[in-house]
Amino acid sequence: MRRPPIITLTTDFGTSDHYVGTMKGVILGIAPQARIVDISHEVRPYQIPEGAYVIARACGYFPPKTIHVVVVDPGVGSARRPILAEVGGQRYVAPDNGVLSMVFDGAEKVRHVTAERYFLQPVSHTFHGRDVFSPVAAHLAAGVPAARFGKRIADYARLDFFHPTRTGKRFWTGLVLHIDRFGNMITNFHIDEFPHVATRPFELNIGLRRLTRLVSNFSEAQAGELVAIVGSSGYMEVVANQASAAKLLGCEIGSPAELVLY
Amino acid sequence: MRRPPIITLTTDFGTSDHYVGTMKGVILGIAPQARIVDISHEVRPYQIPEGAYVIARACGYFPPKTIHVVVVDPGVGSARRPILAEVGGQRYVAPDNGVLSMVFDGAEKVRHVTAERYFLQPVSHTFHGRDVFSPVAAHLAAGVPAARFGKRIADYARLDFFHPTRTGKRFWTGLVLHIDRFGNMITNFHIDEFPHVATRPFELNIGLRRLTRLVSNFSEAQAGELVAIVGSSGYMEVVANQASAAKLLGCEIGSPAELVLY
Amino acid sequence: MRRPPIITLTTDFGTSDHYVGTMKGVILGIAPQARIVDISHEVRPYQIPEGAYVIARACGYFPPKTIHVVVVDPGVGSARRPILAEVGGQRYVAPDNGVLSMVFDGAEKVRHVTAERYFLQPVSHTFHGRDVFSPVAAHLAAGVPAARFGKRIADYARLDFFHPTRTGKRFWTGLVLHIDRFGNMITNFHIDEFPHVATRPFELNIGLRRLTRLVSNFSEAQAGELVAIVGSSGYMEVVANQASAAKLLGCEIGSPAELVLY
Repeated sequence: MRRPPIITLTTDFGTSDHYVGTMKGVILGIAPQARIVDISHEVRPYQIPEGAYVIARACGYFPPKTIHVVVVDPGVGSARRPILAEVGGQRYVAPDNGVLSMVFDGAEKVRHVTAERYFLQPVSHTFHGRDVFSPVAAHLAAGVPAARFGKRIADYARLDFFHPTRTGKRFWTGLVLHIDRFGNMITNFHIDEFPHVATRPFELNIGLRRLTRLVSNFSEAQAGELVAIVGSSGYMEVVANQASAAKLLGCEIGSPAELVLY
Repeated sequence: MRRPPIITLTTDFGTSDHYVGTMKGVILGIAPQARIVDISHEVRPYQIPEGAYVIARACGYFPPKTIHVVVVDPGVGSARRPILAEVGGQRYVAPDNGVLSMVFDGAEKVRHVTAERYFLQPVSHTFHGRDVFSPVAAHLAAGVPAARFGKRIADYARLDFFHPTRTGKRFWTGLVLHIDRFGNMITNFHIDEFPHVATRPFELNIGLRRLTRLVSNFSEAQAGELVAIVGSSGYMEVVANQASAAKLLGCEIGSPAELVLY
Repeated sequence: MRRPPIITLTTDFGTSDHYVGTMKGVILGIAPQARIVDISHEVRPYQIPEGAYVIARACGYFPPKTIHVVVVDPGVGSARRPILAEVGGQRYVAPDNGVLSMVFDGAEKVRHVTAERYFLQPVSHTFHGRDVFSPVAAHLAAGVPAARFGKRIADYARLDFFHPTRTGKRFWTGLVLHIDRFGNMITNFHIDEFPHVATRPFELNIGLRRLTRLVSNFSEAQAGELVAIVGSSGYMEVVANQASAAKLLGCEIGSPAELVLY
């Protein structure tokens, strides 16, 4: 049996308005067999780094050829370009504002989507999720080759908010990439880049606290105790067993964190 | 390949309870091939005008023959009738309380659904979404003709909250139809009815503010500046670039707005 | 036409993170034809009784052979076992922490899932929803027989929070099982166990109020009046017509309730 094409949606549209449902209507009108999967619509309004984080964490778990639509788009209606990116056997449709930065692997092919015949006409100035990104994704799902949508470009936006900065021989400055529903704080210190933390002493300074203990699962911590853990995406997280670390520390997405290796 | 039937859901049930999942279970038991699409379950409890707005904005973007289930139903269990409406090549299943008012186009065919053999038995007094509307929609999707569900009626509910009232030679009184996740305030002044605003001076009075500037996209406004824009559905919206206009103005859904044309 | 397999998801993951979308990616990679239905992802974090209630209310409305994934899992990464349960012609994949207690009917077959070849490798310590429960459910959906996943066990967790306790000749002590989006408070007094309330005098004491009136639908109550009703699942509920009973009474999930029969 043929695999139906998969289209995922990641937006800051929320779910209380008609926006997401409308995008799905557009997609199913063009690609009736498409399977549509919501990643998240709760990216905070206009927060490109948060959208970048969310899609990057989920995309690798989808089958090859999946099409990911990512719409966090404060510049909708302005001159910012719509792009179509091919990375790692999957495809992405998004505004050219850096929201795919954490997906790019250096081997990505990026196109400026200019083929207006694949847009919903007339194109509104405020809802390209409906008029541009959804129909482009649906035509891709229906079999239109990527090259039909526009030419390759090299000057697309890439953000670099998600790499820590070395600030001394033993010091790195990073930040809180994301805070999840449980109040777990995901930092941008990745175990692949800092394998040291698994075997040798370290300090993770965050909020007004200094953490030196890395546990391997939540239940090793006392109830309410703040500890570090390597999370399910490989990033160091600050968590509290059955409590919100973010509330305990008073931190937000973007709050700084410092890693010291001994 | 045959297009699978599409059933959309618009309710005030929220997503924290089992209500929506249960409706989907009922639908898939009767129409296993149906594609179910959520429009919104975050209509505020019992707010019929809000439900009317949400479904009317989304429905036109779905393919012909789509079946829309709309359950904002403060009168559940009372004598209010379930109805099945055919409008513009699509079908709607809803309580007869006006929630389809913005969908009706004057050529709608409306039936009182009385064929209890298509209901889940026994029918509860409090959850017709599960026991009446979902199974009726699913049987429709499975191919049962509309006429089997009940007789045509002419005295179904129509609300007229969404048209502005002329209050003077140059004056119209309207209201805020909807406030979206971004705090954009959608008024009931539609560009088709008021093309004047695109080319000539106007005043839009809302909250304690007087707006006279119509922009064509968000980025034309300064950050935080309040402006008017013709939104993606054709209604005039009051928006603030990357900020919540509703918060800035202290307005709510239903707040009055006045349009003056010069 | 063959019925596609159905997999439902009930979690405390919320919908703002990538967690649920990631689980769906894993499932569709293994079982491309599976239909995935969200029951709720808004179970409050770590609240096993709430998850138990939500899945138990929805499951009976799904077709035979449906696979229900239930992940409310405060013990993730610890020694708690993953289980696969067969009950009433449906299947359940969940942690062995009592979250299936309200689904079990005394005839359930429960297996300890040990066949790691069906897990995503390497298995993280913090996200078994992705690495264990989703792939096991997907392999089940793809046709792997239940017996392949592990051996039958008899010592799985069962909780008994949901039955009232008799405290006197005419007295039963129960609790608020759930509060829904509308503020309706669902108690654990079930009409099948207490048919008396439908025909004879009773008292339901909850918060600081004594209720003695059972209505059959919301509209029998005055606006804002607190009344008892037999809800759509057969439990007695305390509701207020078009208002939140929970707010009026200041009660929470788990608050006590007393039933007195005369």
